[in-house]
Amino acid sequence: MSDDALVIFTPSGKRGRFALGTPVLTAARQLGVDLDSVCGGRGICSKCQITPGYGEFPKHGVTVHEGALSDWNAVEDRYDRIRGLPKGRRLGCQAKVMGDIVIDVPPESQVHKQVIRKSATERVIAMDPATRLLYVEVEEPDMHEPTGDFERLARALDAQWQVKDVEADLALLRRLQPALRKGEWKVTVALHQGHRDARPRILDIWPGFHEGPLLGLAIDLGSTTIAAHLCDLSDGRVLASSGLMNPQIRFGEDLMSRVSYAMMNPGGDQEMTAAVRQALNTLVTAIAEEAKVEATAIYEIVFVCNPVMHHLLLGIDPVELGQAPFALATSGSLDLDARDLDLTSVNREARVYVLPCIAGHVGADCAAVALSEEPNKSKDMVLIVDVGTNAELLLGNETRVLACSSPTGPAFEGAQISSGQRAAPGAIERVEIDPVTKEPRFRVIGSDLWSDDPGFAEATKTTGVTGICGSGIIEAVAEMRMAGLVDPGGLIGSAEQTGTDRSIPYGRTHSYLVYDGSESGGPKIMVTQGDIRAIQLAKSALYAGARLLMDEMGVDKVDKVTLAGAFGAHISPKHAMVLGMIPDVPLDHVISAGNAAGTGARIALCNKASRAAIEETVHHIHKVETAIEPRFQEHFVNANAIPHAVDPFPELGKVVSLPEVSFNTGGGGGADGGRRRRRG
Amino acid sequence: MSDDALVIFTPSGKRGRFALGTPVLTAARQLGVDLDSVCGGRGICSKCQITPGYGEFPKHGVTVHEGALSDWNAVEDRYDRIRGLPKGRRLGCQAKVMGDIVIDVPPESQVHKQVIRKSATERVIAMDPATRLLYVEVEEPDMHEPTGDFERLARALDAQWQVKDVEADLALLRRLQPALRKGEWKVTVALHQGHRDARPRILDIWPGFHEGPLLGLAIDLGSTTIAAHLCDLSDGRVLASSGLMNPQIRFGEDLMSRVSYAMMNPGGDQEMTAAVRQALNTLVTAIAEEAKVEATAIYEIVFVCNPVMHHLLLGIDPVELGQAPFALATSGSLDLDARDLDLTSVNREARVYVLPCIAGHVGADCAAVALSEEPNKSKDMVLIVDVGTNAELLLGNETRVLACSSPTGPAFEGAQISSGQRAAPGAIERVEIDPVTKEPRFRVIGSDLWSDDPGFAEATKTTGVTGICGSGIIEAVAEMRMAGLVDPGGLIGSAEQTGTDRSIPYGRTHSYLVYDGSESGGPKIMVTQGDIRAIQLAKSALYAGARLLMDEMGVDKVDKVTLAGAFGAHISPKHAMVLGMIPDVPLDHVISAGNAAGTGARIALCNKASRAAIEETVHHIHKVETAIEPRFQEHFVNANAIPHAVDPFPELGKVVSLPEVSFNTGGGGGADGGRRRRRG
Repeated sequence: MSDDALVIFTPSGKRGRFALGTPVLTAARQLGVDLDSVCGGRGICSKCQITPGYGEFPKHGVTVHEGALSDWNAVEDRYDRIRGLPKGRRLGCQAKVMGDIVIDVPPESQVHKQVIRKSATERVIAMDPATRLLYVEVEEPDMHEPTGDFERLARALDAQWQVKDVEADLALLRRLQPALRKGEWKVTVALHQGHRDARPRILDIWPGFHEGPLLGLAIDLGSTTIAAHLCDLSDGRVLASSGLMNPQIRFGEDLMSRVSYAMMNPGGDQEMTAAVRQALNTLVTAIAEEAKVEATAIYEIVFVCNPVMHHLLLGIDPVELGQAPFALATSGSLDLDARDLDLTSVNREARVYVLPCIAGHVGADCAAVALSEEPNKSKDMVLIVDVGTNAELLLGNETRVLACSSPTGPAFEGAQISSGQRAAPGAIERVEIDPVTKEPRFRVIGSDLWSDDPGFAEATKTTGVTGICGSGIIEAVAEMRMAGLVDPGGLIGSAEQTGTDRSIPYGRTHSYLVYDGSESGGPKIMVTQGDIRAIQLAKSALYAGARLLMDEMGVDKVDKVTLAGAFGAHISPKHAMVLGMIPDVPLDHVISAGNAAGTGARIALCNKASRAAIEETVHHIHKVETAIEPRFQEHFVNANAIPHAVDPFPELGKVVSLPEVSFNTGGGGGADGGRRRRRG
Repeated sequence: MSDDALVIFTPSGKRGRFALGTPVLTAARQLGVDLDSVCGGRGICSKCQITPGYGEFPKHGVTVHEGALSDWNAVEDRYDRIRGLPKGRRLGCQAKVMGDIVIDVPPESQVHKQVIRKSATERVIAMDPATRLLYVEVEEPDMHEPTGDFERLARALDAQWQVKDVEADLALLRRLQPALRKGEWKVTVALHQGHRDARPRILDIWPGFHEGPLLGLAIDLGSTTIAAHLCDLSDGRVLASSGLMNPQIRFGEDLMSRVSYAMMNPGGDQEMTAAVRQALNTLVTAIAEEAKVEATAIYEIVFVCNPVMHHLLLGIDPVELGQAPFALATSGSLDLDARDLDLTSVNREARVYVLPCIAGHVGADCAAVALSEEPNKSKDMVLIVDVGTNAELLLGNETRVLACSSPTGPAFEGAQISSGQRAAPGAIERVEIDPVTKEPRFRVIGSDLWSDDPGFAEATKTTGVTGICGSGIIEAVAEMRMAGLVDPGGLIGSAEQTGTDRSIPYGRTHSYLVYDGSESGGPKIMVTQGDIRAIQLAKSALYAGARLLMDEMGVDKVDKVTLAGAFGAHISPKHAMVLGMIPDVPLDHVISAGNAAGTGARIALCNKASRAAIEETVHHIHKVETAIEPRFQEHFVNANAIPHAVDPFPELGKVVSLPEVSFNTGGGGGADGGRRRRRG
């Protein structure tokens, strides 16, 4: 009989010969098989569970006999009694190779578990978080070798986990000696390794083996909303997602008005900093409650945000961002202590990572989108549009990537719209207008029924119909245009011109009545001429930014459009294109990426190599400054019209060709300028 | 005519040929000549002043003609008008080589200025502080190259000062943009470079050129007193030195009583931590006032202290230091923020460096003594004794160094002595006793007169004679022994036995009256039998420690004794040897090193390479644990006697041989044990 045996791991297929008696975990490590272990092979953590296979394996050319692994031992027995081990499973650190064997590594025993993103482009995040739990056994102190307890812990981390030169702050040093003694020189530490040449830092310590949880937050700090994902750092699972309005709105709806507030009011920047930090603490508490975990189990936070929010979060006066040359105080990524940002609700030792900014108007949120969507790895020329209160645009492919930001204002989010409201139950989010009868039907958030479906009134009894949100107003305006209620210049026709009583006089202009709840004390929801102008301004800014990037890139079409942000989540690509928000591409080349900035934050949270990668990538993204570029103004003016008189995607809808109405008798032009009219 | 010229620098003698037109500063740098410059050669700082020499220089074999340097230029003229330039001086960055020239670099233009220590062994400290001022010119921001201001500052520091990868905390980032703009993109930064692989950190920033001061503190944090030196980090000058009682004394006079206090009182360690930190802030404020500088100009503090003070300073419960195996929470050196130690009186960004500890009973203070006295570089076998409330001993030479601590208690500092007091005006510090008449004479702190000098009463009118301090009691006991008032076992003889009325009954024993001020309402100052016992215990502990090290080293004599601490400053080596505090060596082989621990702290403050050096050295110092070593007890008991019946150094004093008195009729032994009696 041979004194070694063949070991085959599935699903990886890795194989090798090992001396009889070799623990399965050791074999896995030597072959580079992805088999987890937190306790370092001491039969404590059970992370290294494997399933041995017995019998014939023709595919692998091997027969596995009984006794190919050592007998079930006392450690496994104890673990099974106390915590339970699924049937057929063994502990990889205890079971030893005694003959040829096929070993399956179940998904939950793989260290680099994969997190599938809920989006059109499925992406995996390799789990390699900057913060992790490590179990160590420390040498006891000895009068004749008088090193400190910390130095012996550091030596143990080096020997057992190859973590060199750790550091710890005073608060940890204070708790070190009791923890080591209570755990009888066995402890678990939470270790943070920033990606730069920073020394690894011990953030926490527990006597004995500590299973967690060890949590992290990925936060997309927007001008209007703050969105957070609470993740388990051991496997990347999202335990809860939660959002909150940014309380800085009271200082100004958009970024520039907040910069103005800081300029006009001494200490105004500090007021805004305090407000956002307080909101973050509230959000942390809420999300931890939702996930039924302690907020103090949160050891790391990754932030993405635009430059103004970036400075206000850090407590830096954003005044320079309000004037050319829009100099950032710092553009690089940041590794900070959470307590330096007054984030007191998380663990006291929690660390913060802020993604790098690209430029004065193109922030860490755009970097996060680039990390998530990877335009720099695309073969196609892709335009990525992230719409929030500010819009960030990326255009490029594996050769070159450009970026700019565009001041769309908050109209796309339902603000500055007469019946506008935030996306909340009762808000109209979808609109269709019959091109013949000019009658609308709609859906509100909180119900799947259309307003002309039976039971709609009943279904919306509690929420009511309260207003119209960002996606609703975009659909409404596009549908109005397609139904001939609005001309290419954006003017709403009168009842005579449009042939419907829903077009009602409103000052010197007209409005279109979407919903009249006044009989039952509800609102009248209308799209006014002012609403259309607001949408026109916003979409022109967005479109002009895209055109500017295309000019700079020297292309007059793009292969692919990725919609991110509020856009990606809620706005119909078809209606966006009807409005002329984005350049025309075939509808199946439009991809919705959801909250790509938030996804980028999650990637950075779960994988520390991605931090180094995006820090490198941002150096190669060329920023185009819209604020000083005369062509931006030109594109902006030219993009004012809503030229799609014909539904550009008849194959997808039911709308047929329509007469090219014009209510604008006074000339005014612009309907055609700068935009190639597309004909069905 | 040649297109290059010979340049000779004095005093270094370095020489080289340079192209005509080369600035003197450039030539100096290329030759490695020590010529200072803070502004990087922009004619602002004037640190690079040089004195050109003209005429014949036979020693150098060169003749220097008029015109060997370029003409006095506008920059020099402006500097001279505004700030004044000494006659004959030029600015090295402005004056260009135009012919063969001899250039003298005056001492104040040498970067590595030398600080002469006021002590027996003159030592120089090469100035290479961890914190320094650097003037930089930063590129202005540009919309097309949108890096952050901080990143451009970092780039400038790299290009102009070869300082790579700097970091800064949020508080600095907040102040960065206004400073850069106010200074028109020229700023001075205070840069801190810890010795480890830590990134250099910007601690402060000023618009334009900032001359300083940039200050540092070297603090010897003792159990009884806290001593601080305030140093100018540009040249190492000590601007002020100040001391304060350690307020922890109220929790226990010696270290072990403080550890007990922490063990017996929950939160007691935190009370002591708060007390010492508060005292440090008080000391900082006082020393800054004394030097007439702002305490906020202090950017760095170096601490040396024993292990218990080390833990209490850091806020770590010292309980483990009170029981075997005396494990330190951490033994390595520490780089901290001053604000983490609540040291709020110094600059908010100030850094702290704590020297490494050697072992649980041998602390950073002993490491500092090793750094200052360098036993590891000695050819002689040297014993270094640092006496405070605890005594630390180092024994060794370039081959091997041993260390131990010995619990002498506070008797050497005048505590636990019947008429004892701290060293302060009015305290008896020197004592002589006539061996024939048995009459004492003494000196008190605050006057140079002896008590039998004319005018003594007048000179001490304001202070009075208030008690006896540590050095006084040591001299008194030694003199009593030499005068035959005390027998080798330490017993004070009666008036009949000694023949003097100054020996007066005191309970069942006798006391010796040194001074009687009772007529004028003053104290009676006596040396009681209890005082002698206290001194015997203390000196036995000290001697036993030395013997233990000698045993371990395998030697029965030492070549040299260095006295440090209170000892070095005030105690007479002769009397110390009479008492048997230290092993016998020829008196001229006894060196007084003053406050060697404080000197070590100053060295670490002024020279960052010395930090790496001592961190390495402590690993090679072998610690001998007195607490568990049976031989220590043996040596301790054997060292109890005061065997020197004959003045061991007749050549230095006036005392002649004396009968070997014995007042101890009941045997009791020990007078001879363990100690070789020395005969004149």
